Order: sequence, then structure tokens, then C-alpha cells
Amino acid sequence: HTALSIDAGRHSVLLRDLSGTEQWMSYDRLVIATGAESRAPKLQGLGLPGVFPLRWVPDSIAVREFIEQYKPERAVIVGGGYIGLEMVDAFLLRGLAVTIVDHNPTLLKTVEAPLGERIAEELTGHGVKVVTQADVQRIERHGAGLHVVGRGVSLEADLVLVGVGVAPSVDLAIAAGIETGVRGAIRVNRLMETNLPNIYAAGDCVETWHRILQRPTYLPLGTTAHKQGRVAGENAVTEGEPRLFEGSLGTQVVQILGLVVTRTGLLTEEARQAGCDPLTVGYATWDHKVYYPGATTMQIRLTADRHTGKLLGGQILGRRGAEISKRVDILATALFHGMSVEALNDLDLSYTPPLSSP
Amino acid sequence: HTALSIDAGRHSVLLRDLSGTEQWMSYDRLVIATGAESRAPKLQGLGLPGVFPLRWVPDSIAVREFIEQYKPERAVIVGGGYIGLEMVDAFLLRGLAVTIVDHNPTLLKTVEAPLGERIAEELTGHGVKVVTQADVQRIERHGAGLHVVGRGVSLEADLVLVGVGVAPSVDLAIAAGIETGVRGAIRVNRLMETNLPNIYAAGDCVETWHRILQRPTYLPLGTTAHKQGRVAGENAVTEGEPRLFEGSLGTQVVQILGLVVTRTGLLTEEARQAGCDPLTVGYATWDHKVYYPGATTMQIRLTADRHTGKLLGGQILGRRGAEISKRVDILATALFHGMSVEALNDLDLSYTPPLSSP
Repeated sequence: HTALSIDAGRHSVLLRDLSGTEQWMSYDRLVIATGAESRAPKLQGLGLPGVFPLRWVPDSIAVREFIEQYKPERAVIVGGGYIGLEMVDAFLLRGLAVTIVDHNPTLLKTVEAPLGERIAEELTGHGVKVVTQADVQRIERHGAGLHVVGRGVSLEADLVLVGVGVAPSVDLAIAAGIETGVRGAIRVNRLMETNLPNIYAAGDCVETWHRILQRPTYLPLGTTAHKQGRVAGENAVTEGEPRLFEGSLGTQVVQILGLVVTRTGLLTEEARQAGCDPLTVGYATWDHKVYYPGATTMQIRLTADRHTGKLLGGQILGRRGAEISKRVDILATALFHGMSVEALNDLDLSYTPPLSSP
Repeated sequence: HTALSIDAGRHSVLLRDLSGTEQWMSYDRLVIATGAESRAPKLQGLGLPGVFPLRWVPDSIAVREFIEQYKPERAVIVGGGYIGLEMVDAFLLRGLAVTIVDHNPTLLKTVEAPLGERIAEELTGHGVKVVTQADVQRIERHGAGLHVVGRGVSLEADLVLVGVGVAPSVDLAIAAGIETGVRGAIRVNRLMETNLPNIYAAGDCVETWHRILQRPTYLPLGTTAHKQGRVAGENAVTEGEPRLFEGSLGTQVVQILGLVVTRTGLLTEEARQAGCDPLTVGYATWDHKVYYPGATTMQIRLTADRHTGKLLGGQILGRRGAEISKRVDILATALFHGMSVEALNDLDLSYTPPLSSP
């Protein structure tokens, strides 16, 4: 069924089934979880054969079928975010020559420049061409292939993957009189209630309470959607003590070839904009005791507030297998409890030479 | 220099250097860090050639030299604790046929039976013979080799490694009038002060404050020694706000062939003995999204108090590379803050399909 409209006064939703039949369904409580939709970048040639967005499963199937049918040799990826970086791996596995183009000075702007530079090194080491500070303006047909053109970029390609942004899907909610807030997402309180009685909302369509900033943000992430959905669902079906959404720290991780890159909390500039006085220290260290075979280096960046001493955020980059993802989760758990950097020393963490340091 | 005695009244320590010269050295503050010593098990034949303990570096060198010189083919390990299990790996790498013998019903009694059983499966899968509920009573010469004999055990061997216990090294402290407590370890408060003024102690020679039990225990672990040493050192040299040792959770991890086994907090029985009303739930789950290649299963056991809902402990067993060690550290950080099991759902942990689940 597709939800066509919400009549909050009559506590009803108009649904249409696959045969086209419409009917009103009444509710006691309603949870809106309409998610987000793709927002295509402003560049010409998006409709050309061989040019693909990637957000939905059908997009990925289309890319795979194109590869199998036309055997492209050169792929250009426009956008150095999570999806673009993950697709590098997929294209290399298919034997394509890959170029990744980004308009920022370093890749993956969700982490700071020193980590972005290490990502570029990793890609280059796998034969990937990395083009930064380039604005792709259009994609053109060029003989049997494609031409990716813009400021600082001119590339031949057989296949172009274009990173797309997301925006909350809120038409249904707005038509029902539900208010929106940050980035046009549905405004919710920490009970995941909208402004209309008995209507909850959760996931990529809503604002996300940020635990450190203590204000709503827009952070459409899978884990956040899970937690918000659980809170909305519990509150919708329970009459007892309401459950609060405890907030997001923006914890994120991505695997890029042999690297894992992760962050939680605020970057330095985000902390500054939030009125903190951040100090960020970056350093490299071994993932485990170097006398035990197989030790690799990690890059760690910790951000704290100079005045309060409180941890504000952390970023870690290291080799796959070095438990990078769960290392940041220790920081995320510390951030959840507002720990100071000094107090991190007091945690009783596991230690064995092949896996860690005391 | 070797410390021969402490004269607390004169604030001096008697030292002897390598040439045998003795002299008194005065102190303002003293930190005792004499560590622990091996305690050999009660069994006959420990002095036979080919029978080795393993606690110190010279022990390991002796084992290696014996292997290189005599090319033993059959190793028997007496004791299924951390050292014994780690040595299985080392002996297999050297090409020896390995048998491990333990007197408990399952291996590695620092975790509960279902995990010990999985460890035995892993060892068996690597061709190791596992003998449990056996009491080794003596080791005898037997032709050119050795014979390991006891209740439930009769094994031929060319090399026998005997697990040894540890006991705090406290002779120096006791002679100086310093009090001891749990398991004969030096009694300290949470400032790491002994009963004598200006004398601190830290590491394997002292009692360890347990954060959940809220009482001293004896838990000689490397990470604990680090933290206690830092607290003792800071308090010994600083006149300002004293630093408290925040306590141990008994967090431990060991790598056994392709497995990682880890725990933090209390086991079910430990929680019961501490007056809690524990409920332990064990389950198996994937380390990451199963649609992404390479997913492996983990065994997780969580223990909580039925009345308070508070997390009391966790045990995890999984494949190397599945970030097992740092997963338990999330639980250790949660335990540090006295979180309830329910509240674990609120943590904002990292998620990406190749490494985790939302």
C-alpha cells in the first residue's frame, strides 16, 4: 500500500493498494517513517547511458548489468563520500580502471584532512587516480565513451557513477500539517513526537537530536534510524513511562579497500562552530604490540575542549583487521557519558599483545 | 640494584649493586612495585629435563632451545589457562603434536563453560588433543621421553609445559611492616597508599580495587598494573588533588589460534557470590551483515542483575578479525559507568555492513 494522505483530525490515513483501490485506515497512533530521497547534483548529462546514480538497489542492479553487457574499462566516480569510496572497491574487483573526483581538498570530508590524505594514498596504491578540488560540470558523449568535464577535470570514461545527496521525504507529513525543521526534516521532540498529537516520526525523514550539541541536526544514518524507530515504536504502543531518544554522536565508519576509517562526535571545526574551544591531537600508533607479528599503524585524532577537558570527538584510520571500528565505539561510549580525556585512562580495557597495547 | 630492606622510620631503602656494594638511599616518597612470583603446582617431576614452567623470558628461551636441540615431537601442556592456550599456538607453529590437560570440566575457567567448549572445538579442529577433568600428579622419565600421569590422564611426551600460578612478591614489604590483604597482596587504598606514610605500591604485588564488587581483589593483569602505577606515581610526586584508582573490571582477552576470547565484569557465579541476582543470556550472532562476504559467528554472554537491570558482565568469543577484543571494551566502558542492559540500546556505535550490524 502507498500512503496518500494523513487526516490527523479524523485519525486516518488514505491508502492505495497495488490494484489502485483507495481506502481510509484509522489509527490510534501513527509512526511516519518515509525515509529520504535522492537529490541529484547539478550537472549536465546525468541521463546519458553509462551514467548512474547509486542510492537504491535498482541503481546497483543497473550498474552491474551495464558492466556485464558493455564491459566498460574506465570508471569515473564523481564524489568522494561513503558511497563513492565503497564503489572504488567494487569497480576494482570488476577489473575497471578507476578515477575518483571530489570538489574538496581531501576525500571523505566527514573526517579531517590528514585522514583524507591517507585514504588518497591507499587508493593511489591500488592504482586508483584521485582528483581533488575539481568541480565536475557536465558529462558528454565522446565517441563510444563518455567525457567528464569541469573545472580542474577532463576525463575519458566508459562508466560514470555520480554520488547523490539525500533529502528527507516529507511531502506526506507537510500536507498533513506536520512541522519541519533542520534541513527540511520533520520536527520531532526526544519522544519522537511530531507537533500533531499521536503522530510520531523516525528515521531519515526526521531531525536527529545531537547528544553533544544538544540541539536537532540532520544525520540520516542507519543506526540512528534503528534507535529512533525503536523509541517511536515503544512510545506509540506503550502507555507507561515514555522513552527518550538519547541522541546521536554522528558515529560513522567506512571500509575502503584495506582501510577502515571512522569517527564519532565533533570534528575540530564543528566543535568551534558549536562554541567550544577545541584542541585536536593527531598521532600514529601501533594497533598492537610491535614485537608480536603483524602490527600495523593507526592514525588517531582526538578532539577535546580546552576549558572543560571533555572529550568532544575522535577519528581513527587503520588497517582492516585492526579493530578500528570498535575502537571508535569505545570513544562513542565515553562520549555518551561525557567523559574527560583524562578519565579515558581509567577505563579497564582488554589487552593482549597480538591485538592491543595496555 | 636490588632493594634489600626498607626502613620506613628513616625514610630509607637499603640497596645492593651488582658489585655487592650496599648503601642506604633516602626517599621522600617510595613506590613498591615488586610484582609477583611463580607458584609451581604440586606435582612430581618438575625438575626433569624437558619439563618447563613458563612465566619469565628465560623460561621461554629455555623452551625454544630445547625444541631446537632435541626436536621433540609430542608436547603436553598442563593447564588450560591463558599461557597454556597461547602455547598451543606456538607449539603447533613449531610442528609439534599437542595435548592440553586441564582439571576443570572446560578450558579457560575465566569464561563460562559454553565458551570453554568452543575453545576445545577450535583446538580439536587444529589436531590438538584436549583432556579435561584430569589431575596430573607426576611426570616421569619414560625411555627417551616423558610420561605424564594422574587421575584421568596417561600421556607420552617429549616436552611438558606446566602452567604455574602467581603470588604477590611481598617479602620486602612485610619486613618493613607493611600490611597485606587479599591473597597475601600488599594492602592499598584507592590512592595506592600502603599503611605506612609516604609508601605507595602498585602492580602484581598489591590488592586491586574491583569497581563492581566495591572491594579489594587480587587481579594481577598488565593493564591494571599500568593504571595503578600511574596513580601511585602521580600521587607520589604531586601535592595537589590526589588521584584515585578507579578500579578494575577484570577485563581480559586471549587469542587462541583463530579465536579471540574475552570477558569483562563478573561471571554468573561471581555475581551470585557477590549477592547479586544474576541473569545470563548467551546467544550467537553474526559479526557483520551476513549478505556481505566473510561474516562469522560470535558467541556473546551478557550478565545483568534481575532487580536493578544493571549490566554485570560480558563474555565474547569469535573469530580473529571480528573485532572481538574491542567489542568487549564497549561493554567494559558501559560497566565503568554502571549502565543498564536496556541503556546499551541507546549507545551510538559505528555501523558498516562489512564490519558490524546496526
